[in-house]
Parts: sequence; structure tokens; C-alpha cells
Amino acid sequence: MRSPAQNAELALLLEVAGTPKPGNVDRHHDLADLRFEHFLAGAVGAREGLELAADGAAVGPAFERAIAGMADQEGGNTQFGALLLLVPLVRATREDLSQPVVEAVVRETTVGDAASFYRAFDHVDVGVDEPPEDMTALDVRRGADAIPALEERGLTLFDIMERSVPGDDVAREWVRGFDRSFAAAERLADADGPISDRTAAVFLSLLADRPDTLVATRHDEATAWEVTDLAAELVADNALETEPAAIEAFADNLVERGINPGTTADVTAAGLFIALEHEAIGL
Amino acid sequence: MRSPAQNAELALLLEVAGTPKPGNVDRHHDLADLRFEHFLAGAVGAREGLELAADGAAVGPAFERAIAGMADQEGGNTQFGALLLLVPLVRATREDLSQPVVEAVVRETTVGDAASFYRAFDHVDVGVDEPPEDMTALDVRRGADAIPALEERGLTLFDIMERSVPGDDVAREWVRGFDRSFAAAERLADADGPISDRTAAVFLSLLADRPDTLVATRHDEATAWEVTDLAAELVADNALETEPAAIEAFADNLVERGINPGTTADVTAAGLFIALEHEAIGL
Repeated sequence: MRSPAQNAELALLLEVAGTPKPGNVDRHHDLADLRFEHFLAGAVGAREGLELAADGAAVGPAFERAIAGMADQEGGNTQFGALLLLVPLVRATREDLSQPVVEAVVRETTVGDAASFYRAFDHVDVGVDEPPEDMTALDVRRGADAIPALEERGLTLFDIMERSVPGDDVAREWVRGFDRSFAAAERLADADGPISDRTAAVFLSLLADRPDTLVATRHDEATAWEVTDLAAELVADNALETEPAAIEAFADNLVERGINPGTTADVTAAGLFIALEHEAIGL
Repeated sequence: MRSPAQNAELALLLEVAGTPKPGNVDRHHDLADLRFEHFLAGAVGAREGLELAADGAAVGPAFERAIAGMADQEGGNTQFGALLLLVPLVRATREDLSQPVVEAVVRETTVGDAASFYRAFDHVDVGVDEPPEDMTALDVRRGADAIPALEERGLTLFDIMERSVPGDDVAREWVRGFDRSFAAAERLADADGPISDRTAAVFLSLLADRPDTLVATRHDEATAWEVTDLAAELVADNALETEPAAIEAFADNLVERGINPGTTADVTAAGLFIALEHEAIGL
């Protein structure tokens, strides 16, 4: 039986292998400077941090180690958001991989965890928004330089996540008990076919549910809504099965415009991990 | 910097991602019962054994652990041969990843290593030939049941490999100082483009050099030669760049006939590991 850290690494690999995932790197699509092999190397590099979490390390240091390892490839940020979901989920498996347990894990994070989270930003460039005015001192892009301000205000990692909602649907998972991640796991179990097909179906359904917050950050809200509305139409038409050309056209359009629904991929990876751990999908 | 165990796992992932690799599973091709995700899970599962080798464990036990982990997926044998090359190569990195050092590593294996090797066959079905008559008691398909006979004759793992040449080009690497693996690493460094393209080019060139011994075992010598001659023509025509359709036709033909040049993929994986460790390819 695979360990939680192994399943978490495998979830990262299955996520990037799932195809088609319009706008993102997948088994059949690369982007100009971000290729499939960067995600493979990112997953391999993240494993040590995932093992720390499985061994009972605090969420912050385990996350920072995972990001340092993930960043050890030339593609840049590949799986930052996915790991921010996976690390507490892996930590929860020490007791039980359920929504109440992972909710307790994230609510028990400390100021020290928050400091590690800020240090993680020193390892890799992450696409984030300007912070609100009262949070300038805590801009994550300042990395470790923001730690004194963080300590002064006594903010835990959970506090930081709470302040990032709305606008960041990875943070929203932390605040809402990993709702969408667990829902994604159920959808993966209910879908048909090999894991790659299930992954593609669940990615598209998640994208149809809510605008991708990475798209909203890098482009704007209207663009994020447009993408979600298009995804919803494709889901309604069952296009993955009946109109593959429509899916490819959607994908080409997103890639041309530089639109990558990365947050949706992060939630998909979290769902894959939960489904693997619960043996709801076989492999 | 990635550790040797990380690079070895990454080599397994890059090998299966490299496309086109006619007849084998790759980023764009699955077989009926053996799919891309089985190789992803196989690589993830092998990591613990690779870490044992990097930490100085003996070759046999590290290999057995790698195979037990690799086999923890439903596809069956994905990377047995590749791991039989990678484990001693990873072990060699403790001193120096060079041909003389890895040659010393394999020549110093013991009867205990051979026993672990036989135990590895209990974890997974591997495509092997009938043994010669005087070796029936040592048929690897007997798994751990063959260990008493092995101990009685005092055969080391190197002795077993020596007795498997010719007919098994993974064993040949052990006996010939990993000649082709190091040559593959040089070819990967000299090739052009992203790693996936380099992997495809080197796979085809290796297949053109020598008949694949897994093909000879599962089919016959004539078939293995036919495949190699066709590969050599495609290499001579520079078909990977100029005639992708000819490569696809070759691939379709092999898949239809159930021909998988697995040994050539094993040597490709070993070459990828050496190239990553020597930083001869960037990622």
C-alpha cells in the first residue's frame, strides 16, 4: 500500500497527466516556457516536504520544504497551490483524512507556520495580487522580509489564509474545510474510465462551478467568468465525450490568450490525493 | 540540487514521458492493459528502494525494495529492468558515477544480493526466457524458492547476471561496465531540443544499434532483428524530424503485433539518470 506522501506525489503526477485540461500543461499540452517535465521534476522534488508532513512535522516547515524541492527545476512555479492543499491533507492522514480533521489541522497552525509560508515565497515566483492597503507590510512577495511584521501582529498561517479570501480559492479551501477538494474526490470516484479521463472531467466540472482565482488575479474577474461560462457550456453539452474538437478549440483559445486556470488544477490535485487515500479510485 | 534517488525517480518519469518511443508506453501512447499512470505509480513506488541504495544499502535488498514499491499498482511490471540498472548506478554515486565505480559495485555483489534479486520476482511477473538446462533450479520464475539452490552453488548476483548474457541486455550492462547506459547519456547530452525529444531520439538510436532482448524473449530473434533494422532505417532517414508519419506507422505496427522494446527503454532510463547526475541535460 502506498504511503500518504507517495499518494500525494502521485496525485501531483496524475493531475498534470490528466488530459485535456484546457489552458494548462497536461499529458498532451505544453506551454511555451512551462513544460510537462517541469511538473514531473516539481512532483519529485516536493516529496521530501510531503514526507515531513506525514511524519508529523508542522504544516509550515513541511510546506516550505516541499516548495524548496518543487522549485528545483527551470520551469518556475509548478505546484505551489496544490502543495498548499496537499500538505495539510497529508498531515491529516495521521489521524483521519476527513474534513473535520483537516479543518483542525489548518486552524491549529501557528505564527511560526506563517513565517515558513512567507519563506516559501523566496524559493519561487508565485502569481499573486496586490495586497489590500492595510496588508502591504505582509505582502507575500516580500518573502522572509515580511516575517517581523507578521510576528508583530501575531498572525497564524490560518489567519493569513482567512485574509486571502475571497480572491484566492486555495485559501478558501483552508477556510471552508476543503469542501471543493473532497467534492472533487467524490466526482473522481463517480466518473468513468481511466484516471486521466476522470481527471479531465473533474477539472472541467470544477472550472464550470466557479471562476478560477488565478485567472482573475493574472487577468481580471470578467475573464475568469468568461472562462467559467464557457466551461459550463461544454459540461452541459457533455463535450468531453461528444465534441472533443470543441474542447480543443477552447484549450487553444485559452493558451493563445495566456490563460491558465491553475487554481482549478490545484483543487483537482487535492481531490486526486483524497480519492487515492480513500481507495475511491484504483490504480 | 536533486539527490541521486530523486534523479533516479525522475529518470523513470522522463523515460516514460519521452515520445515517440515506438511499441512502448509513452506520453502519447498507452497499451491495452498497461497505461501511462501505471508507470507514474511505479516510479513513485520505487523511490524508497532507490533511497536505500543512495544511503549505502547493498544492491540486492535495495533492488528488492524498489521492485516491491514499483509493483504496488495494477499494471504489472513497469520498470523492473530499468531498476536493475538504476540501483547499482545510484549506489555508485556514493563514490563517483563512473563506469569503473559502477563496475566495482556490481562485481562486489554477494550471494545475499542474489537471494534478494530472486525474492524480487515474487512481487511481479517479469518476461523472461526458459533457463538453460543446468540452470533449471535457478529459474528466476521460482522466486524465493530458488534461493537454496543459489546458496548451495554460491552464486553472487553478478554471477547470475553473467549467466544471463547473451539474451538479456540488462544483464549485459552489468557485465560490460554499463557501456550502453553511459553512451546513452552522451547521446542525450548531444541531442537537440527538450528532454522528451532527446529521449525519443536516443531510444530510437539504441533500438537501431542492437536487437531488443525483451522482444527476442517474448517473440523471437528474427522479430527482434526486424525491429532493429526498421529502426536503423528510420534513424538513417532522420525520420523523427522529417517523417513523423513513418515513425507513427512503425509504432502502430509494433503495438498491433504486441512488440514492446522494453530493454531499450531500460537502457534509456539509465542514460537519463547518468545525464541528470552529470548535469549533461538541464531541467
